[in-house]
Amino acid sequence: MKALVTIRFKDGVLDPEAVAIGRALQGLGFAEVRSVRREKLIELDLETDDREHARARVGAMCEQLLANPVIESYRIELPDGGPAA
Amino acid sequence: MKALVTIRFKDGVLDPEAVAIGRALQGLGFAEVRSVRREKLIELDLETDDREHARARVGAMCEQLLANPVIESYRIELPDGGPAA
Repeated sequence: MKALVTIRFKDGVLDPEAVAIGRALQGLGFAEVRSVRREKLIELDLETDDREHARARVGAMCEQLLANPVIESYRIELPDGGPAA
Repeated sequence: MKALVTIRFKDGVLDPEAVAIGRALQGLGFAEVRSVRREKLIELDLETDDREHARARVGAMCEQLLANPVIESYRIELPDGGPAA
């Protein structure tokens, strides 16, 4: 089954790359850009059909590798239909 | 208004970071991971309420800065309600 993980900086954490993108857009003449935020999206294909198990495992992946829980928050989605455990 | 840009590698383009994430997850014991794909999500806050204008401008931003059209494809979403031009 597929799992989607969306990772973003927590509110209040400065994202220098987003700031740089905003400045670069302004410099290119896109004066209407007020602010820029970035998120990372990671799509995992998992060898399991157990939604509850998948959610727990992907949570562990986020804590151990995918996200930095100090400054980032993450959201896990399991878009496939099927029985929720 | 808000605009969401999702940028991903075109099919067939190797994403070394996604491959590295997949290997690292395997190394941490997450043997159920079959494959990993990454996308970038950029959220822009724009000083306009004209959806058609916003879509054209964000398309230009993608072509000029946000995406690499040679190897990446992008999708623009304007989630706010309101009249589509």
